[in-house]
Amino acid sequence: MINITLPDGSVRQYPKGVTGLEIATSISEGLARNVLAVKVNGSVWDLSRPIEEDASVQLLTWNDDLGKNTFWHSSAHLLAEALEELYPGIKFGIGPPVENGFYYDVDLGEGKTFSQDDFAKVEQKMLELARAKNEYKRQEVSKADAIQYFTEKGDQYKLDLLQDLEEGTITFYTQGNFVDLCRGPHIPNTGFIKAAKLMNVAGAYWRGDEKSKQLTRIYAITFPKQKELTEYLERLEEAKKRDHRKLGKELELFAFSEKVGMGLPLWLPKGTLLRERLEQFMRKAQVKAGYQPVVTPHIGSKELYVTSGHYEKYGADSFQPIKTPNENEEFLLKPMNCPHHCEIYKTRPRSYKELPVRFAEFGTVYRYEQSGELHGLTRVRGFTQDDAHIFCRPDQVKEEFIKVIDLVLYVFKALGFEDYTAQVSLRDPENKAKYIGSDENWEKAESAIIEAAAEKGLTTVTELGEAAFYGPKLDFMVRDALGRKWQLGTIQVDYNLPERFQLEYIGADNAKHRPVMIHRAPFGSLERFVAVLIEHCGGNFPLWLSPEQFAILPISEKYQDFAQQVYDQLQQNDIRGFVDNRDEKIGRKIRDAEVSKVPYMLIVGEKEQENGVVSVRKHGEGDLGTMTVDEFIATFQSKIAEMLNN
Amino acid sequence: MINITLPDGSVRQYPKGVTGLEIATSISEGLARNVLAVKVNGSVWDLSRPIEEDASVQLLTWNDDLGKNTFWHSSAHLLAEALEELYPGIKFGIGPPVENGFYYDVDLGEGKTFSQDDFAKVEQKMLELARAKNEYKRQEVSKADAIQYFTEKGDQYKLDLLQDLEEGTITFYTQGNFVDLCRGPHIPNTGFIKAAKLMNVAGAYWRGDEKSKQLTRIYAITFPKQKELTEYLERLEEAKKRDHRKLGKELELFAFSEKVGMGLPLWLPKGTLLRERLEQFMRKAQVKAGYQPVVTPHIGSKELYVTSGHYEKYGADSFQPIKTPNENEEFLLKPMNCPHHCEIYKTRPRSYKELPVRFAEFGTVYRYEQSGELHGLTRVRGFTQDDAHIFCRPDQVKEEFIKVIDLVLYVFKALGFEDYTAQVSLRDPENKAKYIGSDENWEKAESAIIEAAAEKGLTTVTELGEAAFYGPKLDFMVRDALGRKWQLGTIQVDYNLPERFQLEYIGADNAKHRPVMIHRAPFGSLERFVAVLIEHCGGNFPLWLSPEQFAILPISEKYQDFAQQVYDQLQQNDIRGFVDNRDEKIGRKIRDAEVSKVPYMLIVGEKEQENGVVSVRKHGEGDLGTMTVDEFIATFQSKIAEMLNN
Repeated sequence: MINITLPDGSVRQYPKGVTGLEIATSISEGLARNVLAVKVNGSVWDLSRPIEEDASVQLLTWNDDLGKNTFWHSSAHLLAEALEELYPGIKFGIGPPVENGFYYDVDLGEGKTFSQDDFAKVEQKMLELARAKNEYKRQEVSKADAIQYFTEKGDQYKLDLLQDLEEGTITFYTQGNFVDLCRGPHIPNTGFIKAAKLMNVAGAYWRGDEKSKQLTRIYAITFPKQKELTEYLERLEEAKKRDHRKLGKELELFAFSEKVGMGLPLWLPKGTLLRERLEQFMRKAQVKAGYQPVVTPHIGSKELYVTSGHYEKYGADSFQPIKTPNENEEFLLKPMNCPHHCEIYKTRPRSYKELPVRFAEFGTVYRYEQSGELHGLTRVRGFTQDDAHIFCRPDQVKEEFIKVIDLVLYVFKALGFEDYTAQVSLRDPENKAKYIGSDENWEKAESAIIEAAAEKGLTTVTELGEAAFYGPKLDFMVRDALGRKWQLGTIQVDYNLPERFQLEYIGADNAKHRPVMIHRAPFGSLERFVAVLIEHCGGNFPLWLSPEQFAILPISEKYQDFAQQVYDQLQQNDIRGFVDNRDEKIGRKIRDAEVSKVPYMLIVGEKEQENGVVSVRKHGEGDLGTMTVDEFIATFQSKIAEMLNN
Repeated sequence: MINITLPDGSVRQYPKGVTGLEIATSISEGLARNVLAVKVNGSVWDLSRPIEEDASVQLLTWNDDLGKNTFWHSSAHLLAEALEELYPGIKFGIGPPVENGFYYDVDLGEGKTFSQDDFAKVEQKMLELARAKNEYKRQEVSKADAIQYFTEKGDQYKLDLLQDLEEGTITFYTQGNFVDLCRGPHIPNTGFIKAAKLMNVAGAYWRGDEKSKQLTRIYAITFPKQKELTEYLERLEEAKKRDHRKLGKELELFAFSEKVGMGLPLWLPKGTLLRERLEQFMRKAQVKAGYQPVVTPHIGSKELYVTSGHYEKYGADSFQPIKTPNENEEFLLKPMNCPHHCEIYKTRPRSYKELPVRFAEFGTVYRYEQSGELHGLTRVRGFTQDDAHIFCRPDQVKEEFIKVIDLVLYVFKALGFEDYTAQVSLRDPENKAKYIGSDENWEKAESAIIEAAAEKGLTTVTELGEAAFYGPKLDFMVRDALGRKWQLGTIQVDYNLPERFQLEYIGADNAKHRPVMIHRAPFGSLERFVAVLIEHCGGNFPLWLSPEQFAILPISEKYQDFAQQVYDQLQQNDIRGFVDNRDEKIGRKIRDAEVSKVPYMLIVGEKEQENGVVSVRKHGEGDLGTMTVDEFIATFQSKIAEMLNN
């Protein structure tokens, strides 16, 4: 018998050689039906592979990222099998899973093409083969046998791949008539695949090398239920509508100009208002939490980044140094604000009594990205961080973490992100030597983070070995309205920069001590945050943030004076909006306000003027009836207060 | 007889050969006593030089910059005469007037030194020679005679200077026993000089060439009255106390770090609050005036600046292009925001109906300065402009100018600058070809500026030929509390960038037209403005801007609760400050608050607590008596409203 430890910590005994599937069956029939693969001591295995020793075991289903991964990897083999039946003589490159689905690089043969028109027949063939419930069979082979197989088949790409593999590590997987060189693991059989959709076709050089042959890359996605595919396609459709690049243009929030340069956003007036409002919101929250705003230049001497270590690490791949005429000076565009904040810390001696010191800056930083990597506001070359650095004593780390978590959760609530988890990244306990900082401080900081997260009731996963070499951290993962995950908000402990900048404070013992630094940015990059926010809310920003919170729509010009009165009253109450005095029909005015996503439309005509009321329409909800302006203001303000905890 | 036109436009007739002094005498005896030199058709002349033709004449006194200049130039000769008597064999380089006083570069001879200890005896000798009322006598000499004179005297420096002079242009001036090679002009005699003070001594290479001999540069200043010297020295003392570099450090507003780089200020928390408040103030005023805030990156492609012309003009002398790995792209740190704003203008078609469009940005720009030129916050390598660009139709220039003048005057009032003048810079009417833009537009813009300035009742001087090649402008000159002049606030018309960027709008005629651009920045550079403001107010910022508006000083810890109540009430009314709960005597607390220049000190003890009042002390004014907190708030708010026109 061997001991199998499950994720909840419970230990069960099984006969030596038990398989993942047998363990699943022993737990429940439902689990046995849904289990896709098994994680054994950290590696993912086929469900049929015997477990010979005591092990930690996690059964993987569609709900686990690794489960999905295995499912899509197996689906890539299914795609290949289908293609081979439809295009005899086809050769195969590689076929890995990706974030959403998988692809296979194929060589259809001289002069043959593949297009959207061919998708349907491949999908049908895949489902036909899936229904056969062919098992994915693993088989260890010698290098010589493997080479012989692919030589006979005439697949030069697989032979290329084989060259890099060592004897004793080579396995084939077979399902139905299709044999592939593959490390595995795979799902039990093709029957799990109930829905398949080819998504895209593109060119891709063999092994990413421009000098090699261009293959055809076929992207596809599969699901264990037809319903999930339908939902996925709907989400995709919705994501297209919400694409921040599309909405950014439609709502005139930002633009790019080739002349200014790729990846360097120009914030248009409406986007700037949105951005300034986010900054004000954060500035207020931060001042309340004891942060001190500072302002530093966007360049620093090369020497500054040599001291911080950034030059050595990123110098060659980033924007190159800025030379100056006549003088022997070189500057760098700042990729991070931390070195500047360290220099501010050093402008005078610090006492243990004044710690923690928290310097906050909306610091615009510049990092070079290849032009092909740029994407709207999510991947840019210049962006503004809501950055801050906390300089504290080691015994203050936990309290500071709690305060930062409070701030991050306040931001999530105010912006309507309700679904989030946190990841605690700790040292690899097996390899402590590779981390900077004393063992004592690491233990203090790690338990501070774990305790802080627990006290704030966060749902966390803990990853050993995922800490940076200079300190442990806490990351927040947010799920947006379309179910996509975004990493927003990192809290990072740092023992490295205080060392490199020789930061000090005078302790109660009158001796010099090294402070701990905490990096944190709840938004992260304002640019990326705005992009995520636009897509999360589809351009319907939270009320307090909305560029135009109301539109007053007079039914005709007779009611413009009354409209102006209402406008003045709202403006005096710090509610933003406009009067639509155009010579247009009311229907048109409502339609236009709907398109611009103005949250409240206040319609005024004869009836309203007589009774001193407004007819209120809410964007996406419709008619809310009439109310006095005071009633509207009260409703409006209570909605905002609820969101901002005011 | 000849016609002499005086500055007020009046014309008087005098005999041919009349001198400046004779004209002054004919006007008034007092003027004759005070006149120092005369400006004849734009050139400054000795008062004794005969005027042979009709001329425009301005009599120069101590109150004219050119009068002071002449006075100090003559004083340099007096200094040289005194030095020659005290140090026989001394050789002379050059001795020009400077902004405050004059200097003479001298060679005392091998091994001889000159120090502060020698100042008094030189001053005494100068005054002794001044009392002799020696005339400054002008004499035209041939180059050969001049060379012979200085060869005999053995003065190599004057011989060096003679080499560059042409026959027929050489004059000597003699007063007492001292003869100098000099173009003049000079004051009538040394008797005008009633006070003399040597200020400094420094080394200076002959002709600024490091390879030449180092001479001794002696700085001095003189005055026509002893009282003026005393006042000048007092102002100097006061300026030293108000030096923004000193106060910036004492008040912890900003700092420099060698590692970040020279000329790149780090804004410390208190300075950042000050700066943010200035920005908020300007943002609010600008939004009220119809500006739209935008945000643009701090770099732009080199191509952008080739288009704008900045690269050709400044490229070689500025921060050099930023190269990137792998790609054929080059970027420049932005020296100006205008090209970016032009690109924003171009993000969509513009109609005549939506003009003027006004894009405002607190844009941080970077311009390279030699390290020797850097000075505190007034001369830096990176600074933030309260920049905006107005894109308007030619017929809108005047109205826009009026609006900008309103904004500039609002700023001056709110910041306590009460003494200002304006300069209108127009085309050189003799040389219209060197200006870009149509004749019609120039005439329209020039009269628009003149009319706008007149309508706003500005005191202006008009300078022909001082316009930039791309448009006329209006500059404001402000005099600070120490009487120093600063240029703050330029409004510049620009026909060049709209042309270079091919900016367009669709006119009422449905055809394409070129908009006019107006550049304007009331603060100019925030950094320089803060420096001027610190020195103007000596660190006692206008109340609305003060980082800490009040300090509550409890007499002992028994009154801390009451102090906190007062604090909460003030904070709820948006009044900023702090409670000084230190365990210190009240005298010490008051002293510390005075040093930090906190405008209001609110002292609370037993009496105050019993009666629910506070004892108010105003910085620099002392005790204002007791009042209720509500009374204090009302007083406080009315003071601020007055300044901000709220």
